[in-house]
Amino acid sequence: MSNALPTTDKKPLNQPLGGDVVPRFAGIATMMRLPFQETSDGLDACFVGVPFDLGTSNRSGARFGPRQVRSESVLLRPYNMATRAAPFDSLQVADIGDVATNAYNIFDSIDRIETAYDAIIANGCRPITIGGDHTIAWPILRAMHKRYGPIGVVHVDAHADVNDTMGGEKIAHGTPFRRAVEEGLLDCQRVVQIGLRGTGYHADDFDWCRQQGFRVVQAEECWHKSLAPLMKEVIERVAGPSGDAPVYLSFDIDGLDPSFAPGTGTPEIGGLTVQQGLEIIRGLRGLNLVGADIVEISPPYDPQGTTALVGANLAYEMLCVMPGVAYRS
Amino acid sequence: MSNALPTTDKKPLNQPLGGDVVPRFAGIATMMRLPFQETSDGLDACFVGVPFDLGTSNRSGARFGPRQVRSESVLLRPYNMATRAAPFDSLQVADIGDVATNAYNIFDSIDRIETAYDAIIANGCRPITIGGDHTIAWPILRAMHKRYGPIGVVHVDAHADVNDTMGGEKIAHGTPFRRAVEEGLLDCQRVVQIGLRGTGYHADDFDWCRQQGFRVVQAEECWHKSLAPLMKEVIERVAGPSGDAPVYLSFDIDGLDPSFAPGTGTPEIGGLTVQQGLEIIRGLRGLNLVGADIVEISPPYDPQGTTALVGANLAYEMLCVMPGVAYRS
Amino acid sequence: MSNALPTTDKKPLNQPLGGDVVPRFAGIATMMRLPFQETSDGLDACFVGVPFDLGTSNRSGARFGPRQVRSESVLLRPYNMATRAAPFDSLQVADIGDVATNAYNIFDSIDRIETAYDAIIANGCRPITIGGDHTIAWPILRAMHKRYGPIGVVHVDAHADVNDTMGGEKIAHGTPFRRAVEEGLLDCQRVVQIGLRGTGYHADDFDWCRQQGFRVVQAEECWHKSLAPLMKEVIERVAGPSGDAPVYLSFDIDGLDPSFAPGTGTPEIGGLTVQQGLEIIRGLRGLNLVGADIVEISPPYDPQGTTALVGANLAYEMLCVMPGVAYRS
Amino acid sequence: MSNALPTTDKKPLNQPLGGDVVPRFAGIATMMRLPFQETSDGLDACFVGVPFDLGTSNRSGARFGPRQVRSESVLLRPYNMATRAAPFDSLQVADIGDVATNAYNIFDSIDRIETAYDAIIANGCRPITIGGDHTIAWPILRAMHKRYGPIGVVHVDAHADVNDTMGGEKIAHGTPFRRAVEEGLLDCQRVVQIGLRGTGYHADDFDWCRQQGFRVVQAEECWHKSLAPLMKEVIERVAGPSGDAPVYLSFDIDGLDPSFAPGTGTPEIGGLTVQQGLEIIRGLRGLNLVGADIVEISPPYDPQGTTALVGANLAYEMLCVMPGVAYRS
Amino acid sequence: MSNALPTTDKKPLNQPLGGDVVPRFAGIATMMRLPFQETSDGLDACFVGVPFDLGTSNRSGARFGPRQVRSESVLLRPYNMATRAAPFDSLQVADIGDVATNAYNIFDSIDRIETAYDAIIANGCRPITIGGDHTIAWPILRAMHKRYGPIGVVHVDAHADVNDTMGGEKIAHGTPFRRAVEEGLLDCQRVVQIGLRGTGYHADDFDWCRQQGFRVVQAEECWHKSLAPLMKEVIERVAGPSGDAPVYLSFDIDGLDPSFAPGTGTPEIGGLTVQQGLEIIRGLRGLNLVGADIVEISPPYDPQGTTALVGANLAYEMLCVMPGVAYRS
Amino acid sequence: MSNALPTTDKKPLNQPLGGDVVPRFAGIATMMRLPFQETSDGLDACFVGVPFDLGTSNRSGARFGPRQVRSESVLLRPYNMATRAAPFDSLQVADIGDVATNAYNIFDSIDRIETAYDAIIANGCRPITIGGDHTIAWPILRAMHKRYGPIGVVHVDAHADVNDTMGGEKIAHGTPFRRAVEEGLLDCQRVVQIGLRGTGYHADDFDWCRQQGFRVVQAEECWHKSLAPLMKEVIERVAGPSGDAPVYLSFDIDGLDPSFAPGTGTPEIGGLTVQQGLEIIRGLRGLNLVGADIVEISPPYDPQGTTALVGANLAYEMLCVMPGVAYRS
Repeated sequence: MSNALPTTDKKPLNQPLGGDVVPRFAGIATMMRLPFQETSDGLDACFVGVPFDLGTSNRSGARFGPRQVRSESVLLRPYNMATRAAPFDSLQVADIGDVATNAYNIFDSIDRIETAYDAIIANGCRPITIGGDHTIAWPILRAMHKRYGPIGVVHVDAHADVNDTMGGEKIAHGTPFRRAVEEGLLDCQRVVQIGLRGTGYHADDFDWCRQQGFRVVQAEECWHKSLAPLMKEVIERVAGPSGDAPVYLSFDIDGLDPSFAPGTGTPEIGGLTVQQGLEIIRGLRGLNLVGADIVEISPPYDPQGTTALVGANLAYEMLCVMPGVAYRS
Repeated sequence: MSNALPTTDKKPLNQPLGGDVVPRFAGIATMMRLPFQETSDGLDACFVGVPFDLGTSNRSGARFGPRQVRSESVLLRPYNMATRAAPFDSLQVADIGDVATNAYNIFDSIDRIETAYDAIIANGCRPITIGGDHTIAWPILRAMHKRYGPIGVVHVDAHADVNDTMGGEKIAHGTPFRRAVEEGLLDCQRVVQIGLRGTGYHADDFDWCRQQGFRVVQAEECWHKSLAPLMKEVIERVAGPSGDAPVYLSFDIDGLDPSFAPGTGTPEIGGLTVQQGLEIIRGLRGLNLVGADIVEISPPYDPQGTTALVGANLAYEMLCVMPGVAYRS
Repeated sequence: MSNALPTTDKKPLNQPLGGDVVPRFAGIATMMRLPFQETSDGLDACFVGVPFDLGTSNRSGARFGPRQVRSESVLLRPYNMATRAAPFDSLQVADIGDVATNAYNIFDSIDRIETAYDAIIANGCRPITIGGDHTIAWPILRAMHKRYGPIGVVHVDAHADVNDTMGGEKIAHGTPFRRAVEEGLLDCQRVVQIGLRGTGYHADDFDWCRQQGFRVVQAEECWHKSLAPLMKEVIERVAGPSGDAPVYLSFDIDGLDPSFAPGTGTPEIGGLTVQQGLEIIRGLRGLNLVGADIVEISPPYDPQGTTALVGANLAYEMLCVMPGVAYRS
Repeated sequence: MSNALPTTDKKPLNQPLGGDVVPRFAGIATMMRLPFQETSDGLDACFVGVPFDLGTSNRSGARFGPRQVRSESVLLRPYNMATRAAPFDSLQVADIGDVATNAYNIFDSIDRIETAYDAIIANGCRPITIGGDHTIAWPILRAMHKRYGPIGVVHVDAHADVNDTMGGEKIAHGTPFRRAVEEGLLDCQRVVQIGLRGTGYHADDFDWCRQQGFRVVQAEECWHKSLAPLMKEVIERVAGPSGDAPVYLSFDIDGLDPSFAPGTGTPEIGGLTVQQGLEIIRGLRGLNLVGADIVEISPPYDPQGTTALVGANLAYEMLCVMPGVAYRS
Repeated sequence: MSNALPTTDKKPLNQPLGGDVVPRFAGIATMMRLPFQETSDGLDACFVGVPFDLGTSNRSGARFGPRQVRSESVLLRPYNMATRAAPFDSLQVADIGDVATNAYNIFDSIDRIETAYDAIIANGCRPITIGGDHTIAWPILRAMHKRYGPIGVVHVDAHADVNDTMGGEKIAHGTPFRRAVEEGLLDCQRVVQIGLRGTGYHADDFDWCRQQGFRVVQAEECWHKSLAPLMKEVIERVAGPSGDAPVYLSFDIDGLDPSFAPGTGTPEIGGLTVQQGLEIIRGLRGLNLVGADIVEISPPYDPQGTTALVGANLAYEMLCVMPGVAYRS
Repeated sequence: MSNALPTTDKKPLNQPLGGDVVPRFAGIATMMRLPFQETSDGLDACFVGVPFDLGTSNRSGARFGPRQVRSESVLLRPYNMATRAAPFDSLQVADIGDVATNAYNIFDSIDRIETAYDAIIANGCRPITIGGDHTIAWPILRAMHKRYGPIGVVHVDAHADVNDTMGGEKIAHGTPFRRAVEEGLLDCQRVVQIGLRGTGYHADDFDWCRQQGFRVVQAEECWHKSLAPLMKEVIERVAGPSGDAPVYLSFDIDGLDPSFAPGTGTPEIGGLTVQQGLEIIRGLRGLNLVGADIVEISPPYDPQGTTALVGANLAYEMLCVMPGVAYRS
């Protein structure tokens, strides 16, 4: 694959701490019990948290998303038994902790996130972000655009997140993709939204997306079937003519039905199944993914960790489709 | 549509309080944050609660159903993004509060419910009821029959609710449709039951239904597929020869699988998906629906509000298929 | 009592909806099931919510405080069986709903709160506020100061809330009393803080309070005994020489031990008992209380409503010591 | 002690199944893992459940009280380490299961309970009842009166439960002691109520009790101190001149503060501590206790079993003060 | 069917206690409220608990599985409404309680389990086991092998459970089928594993199974469709040439997706639906099932009992496909 | 103080990460957000987890104690506002992670714990242990004895933990102090047990302790009062003639009443208050504490983290009374 990263000279590669060495319930919970390091230095990919929920319209709590996803991620083992991906065979990966957000100031937080991502991706490291609410996609996409130019996006969500304002404010968890379009961060022909549904403030909310050139796949189109065929279409669209245009995956956990992911702030019934969520991510293999996020996991509404466990797994699956990942035969 | 209500002279129509005006987590929780009024006066449709669980065989708690459904309904916005229904464009709708049940006396409660519904529907207002346990369907159907004559019913449930008695009693949440048949309230050829399943006291419980002329669709018939084809058959059957015979929708939340709706009193595994639940309700568009209910939501078993959220959405979808609802192009 | 309000000409006075009329679990949950009205017009006292948690340092969720306190308040009956207070015999009281905060902008929210309270207290109405996080005390005190001049404060809390900044910000739930002192809103000799404890960022945090002239009663001083004697001292101090200087009560639910009030954002062990909390409020009888609040109830951490129930009761007890309340013999 | 039962000829006495024989988490949960038998035949004392909550005014769920108390009771061991009571050294005790209540009919349930207790106590067996809501005290007292004549009562509760009606009904969980007085079941001079508090429908609710001759100890009288001195007074009052007049103990779990017993239907803050609850029960040693109950435990509001554990322990302590219990030196 | 058991002379057969006789929430919770007996004497089939979780790698708690499954099983009625199975028409069934495991010693527990099953199956009784973690399958299979020779297995699980060691130990919940293969307990050509998925320690974990001759059906093969066709293949494989070779069903609840069964110790996303779980069990009708288990239900992670309810139903469905069960026409 | 450690040359000392630098909800949760290091090298004191619950008799789950205590410890700030202790002014402290226990083998785990503590305390580092069930006290005391000779113990607990065996086993969470006495690890005259209560297997369980020379303070002795006077007696007893004999503090969270610490495996009602718990620890100032533990916190029974928060605070308070801690004036 042309976008594979050369990794041979980077060994030894970090490995998740195995349950055979230290029990899964023991030790300090980093993501997948990988080594922690403070920057992305030397990394091909990283897990990074953005504990932030100041843009939330209803139930807050996503500020604890990174911590609970890390806790539930202790169950994860290195190999993907479905796809035979072996990410730790070929990529250097670590948990680089959380962006130091400002707990009281949404504006400063957005700036801090952008600055942090400028640094994280400066060396080409591909971040897998654990949110935080969806507001954070905007500063991340700003950083991505500076580094990579217009970005294609695969956006899984119950909501289009293209409001002009919420409560009169430009910055909120329902506006990031509107801001991104306005600022020219996206290559709109290479944007796909999957899972949109529910009730809306305006009957034509999703039409605005289509007018920008997005491919919009409402949840109802996905019911009762495999999304593998859809993903072929998606890949073709977002990869661009060259096949390796930069693509960002933004996965709002509320894209899934609340039966799979109840712990979120603005749940909408009738969503994707987790099996479809896996098909979407696995379907992105081969793209030039420059980063990905899983957002809107709200631990206070997830007391047994069910939703965080889904998030941890999806974050791992995102790693498995990053360019350069080895696959065992 | 012949049964559309003329609404032009009723403006201004009530609108749900928007999240842009007052945050969703703020304000007193009426259904969808609609205006509250004490009677159905001037209304085309209304939301009404029946807080009652004295007919419950196992887990009680449905008495709190109306309150928690209202709390979770604050997430709902006015437009249906799947069907483009815009109920508040053409119907006058309000939350008329709860029927004042008797907390200690099942017999008196049943009488109070019937009396309340006599008044609610006297002007043709179409009530969408938030239960309460399923016992309440009986007094509601009595009122419906007095106003409209024999009623067709679409009944979604895990249980047939046609027991002769429970624990020796004639009035209980497993008997309402037996009582309704006995009293001639139903047009039995226009009754469809969907989602029945589980274990039974008698092997032939569902046969009794079929003997009355009901169409019984056991849950197993529904597995792994869209119910859109089924709904075409259902519509044809329940609409009657004229196409506008009166139909009542009674939706027991336990018709859905417990993975979607765990907060209920007598859950049965292997049920309908919430996507199928939406297909059922959306499939009723065009009928002369004279009322609908969503029952058996038990908040004490639903601490994160997941089930109540499903109930709130289903109640909204019921509104969207009421006669006279406008659809945006 | 000199500060008793003349109420004879205001009858009929609002009464909480009784459980004998409508079951407690029924109906729309206003505070104590009192009538709702949109302003404080004609009211001697009111319950008002401030759903806001953008100033929270750790666990958010207090935005849902007003809604859950209202839900749990349905258990309350009109008479105080301990003190024989009969607030609805002599005061006109209603639930005036929530301040429309801005869910995404802490600065605008603070302005909105101040503006709202300017209006609420313009007619002398005494608001009992359901928070929200403690940040809201600052804009409320600003409004109080404009109306009444320097205010005495009885402040029950685990934390002194006199930080200069938190995370570099001036506005946060740990800073309201610092801001209030700086702006001259308080009559510092008439300020008492009760229940302070736990760990601190600076060893001398509480000394700053004492330097302003506050009486600081650390939690350890309160252990294992009645606070009735303390309250005599408190009354004397805060009432001022005239005996009727304006006093505001600000009660952070985390002043109580987490065993009584687990549902809060920054719990500290070793706190006051709820019995002591009742002694504190009941001990304020006779003061010219111009308003009161109960803040920092965080429903996501209170799934059975235990903490909200405490909050609802304390809010009722605050009403019972408002000037002009009748007491049954 | 004159009222000690001769037990020597009854050996071998039932013993709770020990954790050393079968792990505490194993086996079918009877009360204390005692043998189950269907009647009180041959028993000195028994544990019996009354799963009933049709008299509940707010939160139901007490119907599951017996089952959850049994589950939590598995932690109990045979000896009382504080008092050295060894009830299984001298009494024959078993779990006799639950009264078969009628889930749908409060009137029939009340009759069934009375009939069941007539049989249980016919041989002098002293029942320790696990409720169920407090309505059940009325039919139990009826049976007690038939067997023993006017009964003295120690009644621990937040509420006096002497309403004439609730919602217009004579039978409800707030009326049993009114009914009992009206029917002459009680020896009113030998009635003590401890822990009353909260808000009331009428300012003089507790005065009615006093007018009947009850000793009423409001919760505030109990705060911050040992109840051992009070219990001396109580014993003297309820034992009657002979010292062995029949006494019934009715313990509503909401007599305790919600911090100790959150899982109940109508919690009131400012209640007794569990230490005081233990002092009350232990303080009854020496009386001619003819029966006892622990009521109003509502498992749906007690997901970790905390309240049921309190109930299980209090039921055991009740056994320890039954006449005839041996004490180890 | 050749392996039908003659049952005519065994009447009267035990029947589950009906909700019409005693309310479902009442009485001591045995499995399905069947009679309890201490041994399998005279039984065709039995329910038996193995409260054990010392082999658990992450979240423990399965020790409480039997107790909570019994509690939730009270909802079950005697007839299977989907298949018309009427197990209590032809089989003598009871709840024989729990194996007395050793709470502190995994080695001794394993021995005790094997010994207990030797006795249970000595008379041909077919046990339906409620676990307990999956370690218990090993000693059960040992007993089965002694009685029946090499066993075919239908193994539903997210994990293959064929690790050589875990944390260096041979006995753990991830090793039972490795041990069973090593000891020759299984007829490997008659072993099918369904639902395997997730992440693994070794990329070739499932290949080892295939090398033994197992048919491995990974979860992804099952997505979005009925498993009825698969079950035809399964039946053919496991029944053996004679059609009545002995088969054991081992059903790890984590074979289901966590949306259906969140209360388990090592949940993996993307699993089977409960509808598929039912198809699997119902698809085994006609086999010579010599026993079955449902394991890894962990009540501490299942506070509303959702997972235990699934387990109770699956255990009932297992009974319905035991040889000799009558089916109503 | 003679046992103060010279610390001047060790600067800069580790400091907890402040909430002003990184929000409390952000970052990887080490204990108090202190630096993590793998050994006790260079440390005066350390926090260390022992995730282990194989010795648990009823509810397991303490294996997750260290992880959840760390999560809740993020609320802690460096200074003790009650005592003015400033431990990070004078001691070098870090979180050294968890002992790698064996999840499946109690015997090997015990060995591993002892070995780990041999290393941790070799340099005089004073460990504050987060359990884990109480079994771990035995191997820790073994290590302590090797390093320091016979140890005095302050043991706070509901249970004496001096059983000879449990279920026939010598190693369990109810036996550690029996084993320690047998092996001569303790200086029995310098052992105090506080908080013992509840029910027992033998009426004379606590007498055995007294026979060894322990001072046993049953919970009932502690009710309704400050323990400060008791602690003077305790100090005198355990300090030994020299005043600096080595003392170990073992604090079972179930020593506290379940209202304060519900999340534990074998809760007993009628326990110590958390205020008394603080008095006990603060009362140990001046002793030569060589280590301390807080055990039996079971997160699965503590979904809102209440109990873990208590544990985190108590662990901090233990640090505050370690020899050499500076106190601010």
